[in-house]
Amino acid sequence: MRKLYHLWLSPYSRKVRLALGEKKLAYELELEKVWERRPEYLALNPTGEVPVLIDADGTVLADSTAICEYLDEIVPDPGLVGATSRARAEARRLAAWFDLKFNREVTRHLVGEKVVKRLLGKGQPDSEILRAGKANLRVHLAYIGYLGERRNWLAGDSLSVADLAAAGHLSALDYLGDVPWDEFSGAKDWYARIKSRPSFKHLLRDVVPGIPPAAHYADLNF
Amino acid sequence: MRKLYHLWLSPYSRKVRLALGEKKLAYELELEKVWERRPEYLALNPTGEVPVLIDADGTVLADSTAICEYLDEIVPDPGLVGATSRARAEARRLAAWFDLKFNREVTRHLVGEKVVKRLLGKGQPDSEILRAGKANLRVHLAYIGYLGERRNWLAGDSLSVADLAAAGHLSALDYLGDVPWDEFSGAKDWYARIKSRPSFKHLLRDVVPGIPPAAHYADLNF
Repeated sequence: MRKLYHLWLSPYSRKVRLALGEKKLAYELELEKVWERRPEYLALNPTGEVPVLIDADGTVLADSTAICEYLDEIVPDPGLVGATSRARAEARRLAAWFDLKFNREVTRHLVGEKVVKRLLGKGQPDSEILRAGKANLRVHLAYIGYLGERRNWLAGDSLSVADLAAAGHLSALDYLGDVPWDEFSGAKDWYARIKSRPSFKHLLRDVVPGIPPAAHYADLNF
Repeated sequence: MRKLYHLWLSPYSRKVRLALGEKKLAYELELEKVWERRPEYLALNPTGEVPVLIDADGTVLADSTAICEYLDEIVPDPGLVGATSRARAEARRLAAWFDLKFNREVTRHLVGEKVVKRLLGKGQPDSEILRAGKANLRVHLAYIGYLGERRNWLAGDSLSVADLAAAGHLSALDYLGDVPWDEFSGAKDWYARIKSRPSFKHLLRDVVPGIPPAAHYADLNF
């Protein structure tokens, strides 16, 4: 059986869970408390980060982008990168946008302060950092709306790794109740569509010990 | 004519220059002073970062990973990602290792303090940050040596994006004279081999205004 090592609000774990769901690939989830730095886990992935996927044949895969590309190669249907080289470049550009830029400007500030600090026993969130993360989030929600007005999905006609990467981050923030959806109707429309996909159900059942989800987190009419 | 917007010591620009060189694709280089945030450049790439490649047909490509994947698709020979899905996952994992982890732990500390701070007029390097970057670098050089003992190139039998990503970072640090090659013979052997490739020549001619290269930077017998 395929096994995915993950953490609840890791956007990168979530991206891979969505990819596995879209490909209809069964897997079991294993929680990895990365801060414990287990030697057995470091042997699987020397960065010590999640996710790691052990494929059905025993292949060990690390790095969420490498894992999604691998899944798209071994199970081409439905394609999650794109049909042409140009479309693939755009999907990869936008996936990197969320995984790098959005993470640096938003997720690290909000999930970092509210969840990671708590799990590591490093004290209360810094309100200045939260404020900066929330201000940056608004710029990104406007960008999602801009893309949504011009395209069916973020990178083009079909759902792609760009949507999965964005949804990995946004769903983690939404769990914390940090997304002002009602002020960004374009982004909200996009999120409502991806949130209602069967691949998403699994994420909506997550519960982080000690941190209950926002009231609307699992609600499809949020 | 293909055009690449770059900055001298950007490891990501260097990775794409190496990929273009390995594919034997002609291009012209255009220096982009990203800190000026030119509106025309932001229209090409809203992150404002380098590199951006304008392909011969006018396609605008951003994000160094997306660009390398694109080049590997439109010019498959020589392959720079890998021959099998498993090999490709390993090359992508290691490229991400250097582009994310190595950057965060080493390049940002050293190139950030010595070059970026200077270009932005933000004062002298912080010696604590330089010290941390140099200590982290030693761990990564040992890892390169570890991989080099087991494989022909970093990710396997053939040169791949893993080597190009690593070389992008290491060559920028080597320009600054920050790499203790003589203490890490495995990493040195690997760097000597990639440094002597025709695709590398171009990088060895770079000169950053006001920051001369280390004496051995362009020397193939360093």
